[in-house]
Amino acid sequence: MQMNQIGIIGLAVMGRSLALNMADHGYQVAGFNRSYEVTKQMIEASPHKNFHGYRTLQEMVSSLEKPRRIMMMIKAGKPVDSLIEQLLLLLDKGDIIMDGGNSFFEDTIRRESYLRSQGIHYFGVGVSGGEDGARFGPSMMPGGDPAAYFNIGPILETISAKADDGKPCCMYIGPNGAGHYVKMVHNGIEYADMQMIAEAYLLLKYVRHMNNQEMADVFDDWNQGTLNSFLIKITADILREHDDQSDNDLIDQIKDASQQKGTGRWTSIEALKQGVDVSMITASGNARVMSNNESRPSAAQYFHDAKADNLGSSISIEDIRSGLYAAKMIAYAQGFDLLKQASNAYHWDLKLGGIASIFRAGCIIQARFLNQITDAYERNQQLHHLLQDPFFAKQVKESLPALRKIVIQAIHAGIPVPSLSNAVSYLDMYAARHAGANLIQAQRDYFGAHTFERVDRAGSFHHEWRRSS
Amino acid sequence: MQMNQIGIIGLAVMGRSLALNMADHGYQVAGFNRSYEVTKQMIEASPHKNFHGYRTLQEMVSSLEKPRRIMMMIKAGKPVDSLIEQLLLLLDKGDIIMDGGNSFFEDTIRRESYLRSQGIHYFGVGVSGGEDGARFGPSMMPGGDPAAYFNIGPILETISAKADDGKPCCMYIGPNGAGHYVKMVHNGIEYADMQMIAEAYLLLKYVRHMNNQEMADVFDDWNQGTLNSFLIKITADILREHDDQSDNDLIDQIKDASQQKGTGRWTSIEALKQGVDVSMITASGNARVMSNNESRPSAAQYFHDAKADNLGSSISIEDIRSGLYAAKMIAYAQGFDLLKQASNAYHWDLKLGGIASIFRAGCIIQARFLNQITDAYERNQQLHHLLQDPFFAKQVKESLPALRKIVIQAIHAGIPVPSLSNAVSYLDMYAARHAGANLIQAQRDYFGAHTFERVDRAGSFHHEWRRSS
Repeated sequence: MQMNQIGIIGLAVMGRSLALNMADHGYQVAGFNRSYEVTKQMIEASPHKNFHGYRTLQEMVSSLEKPRRIMMMIKAGKPVDSLIEQLLLLLDKGDIIMDGGNSFFEDTIRRESYLRSQGIHYFGVGVSGGEDGARFGPSMMPGGDPAAYFNIGPILETISAKADDGKPCCMYIGPNGAGHYVKMVHNGIEYADMQMIAEAYLLLKYVRHMNNQEMADVFDDWNQGTLNSFLIKITADILREHDDQSDNDLIDQIKDASQQKGTGRWTSIEALKQGVDVSMITASGNARVMSNNESRPSAAQYFHDAKADNLGSSISIEDIRSGLYAAKMIAYAQGFDLLKQASNAYHWDLKLGGIASIFRAGCIIQARFLNQITDAYERNQQLHHLLQDPFFAKQVKESLPALRKIVIQAIHAGIPVPSLSNAVSYLDMYAARHAGANLIQAQRDYFGAHTFERVDRAGSFHHEWRRSS
Repeated sequence: MQMNQIGIIGLAVMGRSLALNMADHGYQVAGFNRSYEVTKQMIEASPHKNFHGYRTLQEMVSSLEKPRRIMMMIKAGKPVDSLIEQLLLLLDKGDIIMDGGNSFFEDTIRRESYLRSQGIHYFGVGVSGGEDGARFGPSMMPGGDPAAYFNIGPILETISAKADDGKPCCMYIGPNGAGHYVKMVHNGIEYADMQMIAEAYLLLKYVRHMNNQEMADVFDDWNQGTLNSFLIKITADILREHDDQSDNDLIDQIKDASQQKGTGRWTSIEALKQGVDVSMITASGNARVMSNNESRPSAAQYFHDAKADNLGSSISIEDIRSGLYAAKMIAYAQGFDLLKQASNAYHWDLKLGGIASIFRAGCIIQARFLNQITDAYERNQQLHHLLQDPFFAKQVKESLPALRKIVIQAIHAGIPVPSLSNAVSYLDMYAARHAGANLIQAQRDYFGAHTFERVDRAGSFHHEWRRSS
């Protein structure tokens, strides 16, 4: 009897798609789902000669060649810990468990350490690309013991998406939680990307007064240039979608309130802990929060006429495109700044250029300009900040006037652009000859004797400030 | 022998100041410090007939009337847990421990629960006002068992600051971690207040081209009106301070990089967990982070000429004042929105109007306009959001054009105004007729089948989007 090469536990959308992807590539795949009904439905709907469903976890595990490779595709959180305990009863030393869900990286660090003590290799594998990605080639971010990667790398790299240059969108990321961490930051960047596009959509709609079809054409056009990306492309598709029920464009029938699953929020929290400014990611999460604020309608009513005049069409479509491009570079610079800091803090030795390269296909933030990020880190492995790279510095400098222009227009017209305006604030703070922080230090020393540094001498100083009554 | 009424453990600046404050008010105060040298120095430097220093914890505890009242004024974190264990060996059921340090509220929740199981009452007491506040009247935020508050309330209220109407700036806040939570949010608001003032300073300096003396006069003038507050007042003092060493204004000799102790960051993290947008607080913490970025000077060099023309003096001092006032109201609205959410999430039943009233004196954010916040919550205890209150809505609406104007000017000139621009973004998102969130929901449904709601029918819907190649 032929042994299976990999087992997938959890056959919901993502697990099922990954399993069929592996089977397509010739791997013998064992599948198990808590409820066998799901496995049965999958086999009926998508029979595949290389996919084998099992009724019990024990049967599935027994069907695997050694060292066993098992990928969990189940809900993050307690279910993962519970499944690990069940697996420990069935596995042998040297076997490998992978977690392909959206687990929090601190959980992955804890689990990797625990399983290492049990002789089991544990990989936290970030998987991006949604259902289509999982089925036909996702971007994959495996983190765990580098010495065990050779056991899983070939399968993951084979089933992953391929970039234009044919390279797999999967590589060994780093120890323990590094893979899930990079996936988390990917999602944070994804939040910012989506919010920026939503803001550009508002500007096209309310300043340029374009209809959905016209905007779809604009996004298609943008997708031919430096903004080329999956999210720009699908925005064009979305704006063209007709709704049969209302006989209207579907986009206008969708409620103006966005949801989130929390990984973007994790990125914001982690950045605060690491002392890294990811203001655009945080603004994007906050925008989703605010879109659901129950008192928005009455606020809209009340504050509506507290706006300055709409400046008409004083900004061009090209201004919006160029400003969006500047903001996008700043958002990615923020995300990669966090990865750099995390690499130091957790001793992960992350290859930032490589990480950009595996985002090039398969994942939600796939974009042409990721090649440029890879190039930047190849030019200078020690690059302190993406905006210090000559290419990005030049591109941002050239498109910054457009970004300023569209944010100013939005502020005049009362159009909410939290991510675009935070891009400007970030750049202006980063490039400030004077940030005003001296006044803050003076205040801290005045009321709390927290001391300050001086421009003309080394050391910390406290001053006895004269206090007016 | 007369028993002492309260014991203070930890006689560094804050502990010593509180002890002398209590002694001034006629309380017999027992003091203990890990190193007796500190106690001795304090008695020598500031002898007080009502203050009694002890060499051992046991002697100090034995000197207290029952139920014993002990206030810890020590470094937050593990030292608090360790001291609690030592105290448990010496205390009797019904005794009271207070923690007057900047402890994280989750630690306070944990400790209160633990000590309750041991029969000890535990209060987390937020204390604001720095050394002067502690010595002559701080704002105090005690949280713990309401049934035990009568044992400590009279002392705390007696030594607290008094507002203009004579009311103490101390009141029972709520159960377990409520006091430290409110102090945390106070500090978050403080960060935003300081950053906004720093941004106004940059605008006065670089757009209005004022010197320090002129700016000091402006801040003094502002302190007479709606902006009246401790932080505005000390800013005037600071701008007038002369530096003997350089024979220059001291403000210009202080390094342009600001530090933080982390309580503002806690507020940002907690707001993300609660799903509340406190963008101005977060921007203020990020500004401190960015002011320390080591590549700032080279970025300043490179991006300097990527700014639009300075519009000269097209904004008036009154624009800056009015815009700052609008932003300040929005920052407080964000902070109080977080308190409201926390009150629900932790079942604390916070009295938001009362909390505003105890911020009126003693603490760093003391300001005249806090009376208006108290009034707003007295008008409507169920107020959903401060910007829904008629007074604040009207004030913000009137000053919003000035806020837009100064932010636009700053963006033109490349002056970093992250907190002011986030005030605009927040208001525009809050009052948006269309926030663009429908596009984000469409994208989420397109790539992840996350479903969306519709404007015309209830329910969640998934659409099979047509995908262009």
